[in-house]
Amino acid sequence: MSRRELYPFLDTPSLVLDLDKVEANIREMAAIAEDAGVTLRPHTKTHKSPDLAKLQLAAGASGITVAKLGEAEVMAEAGITDILIAYPVCGPIKLARLKKLAGRINVSISLDSLEVARGLSGIGEEIGKRIKVLLEINTGLDRCGVPPGDEAVALAELIAPLPGLELTGILTHEGHAHFQERTIEGIKRCALEAGEKMVKTAELLRSRGIPIRDVSVGSTPTARYIAYVPGITELRMGTYIFNDYNGIMSGVATEDTCAVTVLTTVVSIPAQDRLIVDGGSKTFSSDRLTLNEQGGFGLFRDYPEIIMNRLSEEHGFLKLPDARDRLRIGDRLEVIPNHICVVSNLFDRFHGVRHGVLEREIPILARGKVA
Amino acid sequence: MSRRELYPFLDTPSLVLDLDKVEANIREMAAIAEDAGVTLRPHTKTHKSPDLAKLQLAAGASGITVAKLGEAEVMAEAGITDILIAYPVCGPIKLARLKKLAGRINVSISLDSLEVARGLSGIGEEIGKRIKVLLEINTGLDRCGVPPGDEAVALAELIAPLPGLELTGILTHEGHAHFQERTIEGIKRCALEAGEKMVKTAELLRSRGIPIRDVSVGSTPTARYIAYVPGITELRMGTYIFNDYNGIMSGVATEDTCAVTVLTTVVSIPAQDRLIVDGGSKTFSSDRLTLNEQGGFGLFRDYPEIIMNRLSEEHGFLKLPDARDRLRIGDRLEVIPNHICVVSNLFDRFHGVRHGVLEREIPILARGKVA
Repeated sequence: MSRRELYPFLDTPSLVLDLDKVEANIREMAAIAEDAGVTLRPHTKTHKSPDLAKLQLAAGASGITVAKLGEAEVMAEAGITDILIAYPVCGPIKLARLKKLAGRINVSISLDSLEVARGLSGIGEEIGKRIKVLLEINTGLDRCGVPPGDEAVALAELIAPLPGLELTGILTHEGHAHFQERTIEGIKRCALEAGEKMVKTAELLRSRGIPIRDVSVGSTPTARYIAYVPGITELRMGTYIFNDYNGIMSGVATEDTCAVTVLTTVVSIPAQDRLIVDGGSKTFSSDRLTLNEQGGFGLFRDYPEIIMNRLSEEHGFLKLPDARDRLRIGDRLEVIPNHICVVSNLFDRFHGVRHGVLEREIPILARGKVA
Repeated sequence: MSRRELYPFLDTPSLVLDLDKVEANIREMAAIAEDAGVTLRPHTKTHKSPDLAKLQLAAGASGITVAKLGEAEVMAEAGITDILIAYPVCGPIKLARLKKLAGRINVSISLDSLEVARGLSGIGEEIGKRIKVLLEINTGLDRCGVPPGDEAVALAELIAPLPGLELTGILTHEGHAHFQERTIEGIKRCALEAGEKMVKTAELLRSRGIPIRDVSVGSTPTARYIAYVPGITELRMGTYIFNDYNGIMSGVATEDTCAVTVLTTVVSIPAQDRLIVDGGSKTFSSDRLTLNEQGGFGLFRDYPEIIMNRLSEEHGFLKLPDARDRLRIGDRLEVIPNHICVVSNLFDRFHGVRHGVLEREIPILARGKVA
């Protein structure tokens, strides 16, 4: 096949979603969750698409996770009724929006402070329905979250008695495994350590009379290991639905399990070893590889020797020896992005293909819903 | 004023556009162009907003520049009739779209290859109207473009005779000044060198009987210098309308000339020296400072000592000694982003304020139009 005949029905840059692959990824993680006896609440920040969230729900997910209230509103508008906002929701404008949403659907929220808990408590009292909250635990990412153990208990003891809310559990994102570990063994160890911290904290809370139910974790690299830690009840990872170059580098994905590629066109070959494609930082984002800050901005399918070593907003700079002998202006190249979650957020739709044929467009309705 | 009263009518994260500042920036560059006797064709990739493009046109701009055909379509739809697509447009799908656009408005296109020129020539013949093209020259950025001098002439001699197009001039983006130079003197020298290469190439082309008119350049850091190089006819820079932290670092902007800030809220203070705000790489992008790859992801107005040293998708990690003593959850912080052009592209609208009051929302209609 000539490079010009690669998805000739699509303009570039476009997001090509391989429907067979995405369905296989969804099925695989649903099977892991079932086997481990935990519920699966996928993080939809990776795709921001109600259509794909519904595929995850149809495969057995118990609900979905979002990062922002704006994403929750889009998902609720599309008919999804059980949503965890894994983010501290605060401030009068957000609380007014949350009040409307919590009146309509089943919402739960993560937090790590009494200030945020008090705001949610007020909303719960106003609508006469207890807002479900999960206390966020820092198992090593050093982002949000209280330390596991006594500090978590101390805060939980302040939050649990508040009116208008219900402390249903604890939550962590053990994403540090992804940054710190370069081998599957390291990721597994990190997963088990995080799981153990969570389970011990849950037991400590219960021993102090706080009857929490949910022990929720989630990160694609760790999911296959942490799911089996006894006492973990819920998985929330997101990237597994698509996978990406970071996942390949971590050893938890392969080129064949990456479901989304960016289709680009060679628009200039200004030097013998330099090509320019029609996607830059507004297409791929500027996210470097987690495990190789010096690496390029994507993996070129069929041309692994290409290094996209620089981006401007709409240009990708490609190094390829003998570029002029091997490719021509107008040729199309398919790229597995470093970090798919930020790439989806730059587009309005996925083009769902099966066996090389366009089957349907999938709108990315929660794109840009950062508020 | 309490930090909670900072634009209390806006949710966060939001883009706050100071209308006085943006108007002053537009006026200042229009005055420079007028003084230098060159036309101004601002690059609208910075704001992607027809409303702001119209302010630039009202201040004397001769037309606008866009990077992508999709941006041109949005701008044309909004009534803008003179658009330079500073990008090689190629492939059958894009050419079919261009054919429609070129039939409606005055379009010109940059290119650096005979392949792209042939495609445009075909379109021009089909619609019976010569497509204006500018030959892109590489003055040092090493992105697209043919080398100045003889190689440029050799390619121009192949393009100029093609039917259905008109080679009206040459074009460069001297953006390398921004990456290579750390002083205003360095930027100025770089600007003058690029200008000289362009003017000499233009003279060489004319001496060979190719009667080009346009000698078009553009980059915010160099604009004030290259505009005065005799023989330059057009400026095309984009960032000047807003400015950003990169501009401050280069010495061509100040905090006071930065017209857009990202309004964020402190959502967690999980450690004595760490704050989390509600914007991450989906709000600020992952663009590092051009001149300091180790620097943070933005300049905090009123808190220059804050370093946002890490981002996840929806979290900004802030280092601040004594964070808990100085700020509270719910406080609002205003951030001048590293690179405003990629930040605008992540939002759907600017909130135009004047003297602290919301005056109007400005939709970012060409956001995401990468194709």
